[in-house]
Amino acid sequence: MIARTPEPPYWAVIFTSTRTDIDDGYGAMAEAMMELAARQPGFLGVESAREDVGITVSYWTDLDSIAAWKAVVKHAAAQKAGREKWYSAYVTRIARVERDYSFEAE
Amino acid sequence: MIARTPEPPYWAVIFTSTRTDIDDGYGAMAEAMMELAARQPGFLGVESAREDVGITVSYWTDLDSIAAWKAVVKHAAAQKAGREKWYSAYVTRIARVERDYSFEAE
Repeated sequence: MIARTPEPPYWAVIFTSTRTDIDDGYGAMAEAMMELAARQPGFLGVESAREDVGITVSYWTDLDSIAAWKAVVKHAAAQKAGREKWYSAYVTRIARVERDYSFEAE
Repeated sequence: MIARTPEPPYWAVIFTSTRTDIDDGYGAMAEAMMELAARQPGFLGVESAREDVGITVSYWTDLDSIAAWKAVVKHAAAQKAGREKWYSAYVTRIARVERDYSFEAE
């Protein structure tokens, strides 16, 4: 559930959103997009949780991979549908991960 | 709930965690840390959600602010307690936000 990413540097797409009250296939779309993303070149992992706000962070080897994923036809259609019915607001932030550190209980 | 951040560049601390089943003041600590973070120099905003995994993304003007926040005494104590009882695992990633774009429904 916590993404196993390589040594930095790599890239993160932080997608933060609030939902409308329209369901209309949202869950199926979100799941399909996670599976589709995982098959893209340069994909490293993804983490996601939603309470008042939804946060999905996907990790990528480089900016070109992120640009290619943004342009995948089914993904572009999901983004359009997202703006039309599923999301009341969102922010997408593209960030370069410079360092990381982790902890795991024994 | 979605952080209102300035024009990039700025910095993000992506903290992804899984919890133990020990409560023992976790919620109060998490809330206190959010309030304390918001009073630190260089703090820009925070977003947080938990389902299977918890994701908290805090935003900062620069790396020095992030280093100063990490060293705040009460925060350091919370990190130590987190490793001892609250978290089964976590990864902290420090990333430079290079670009962002947003959507808001009319």
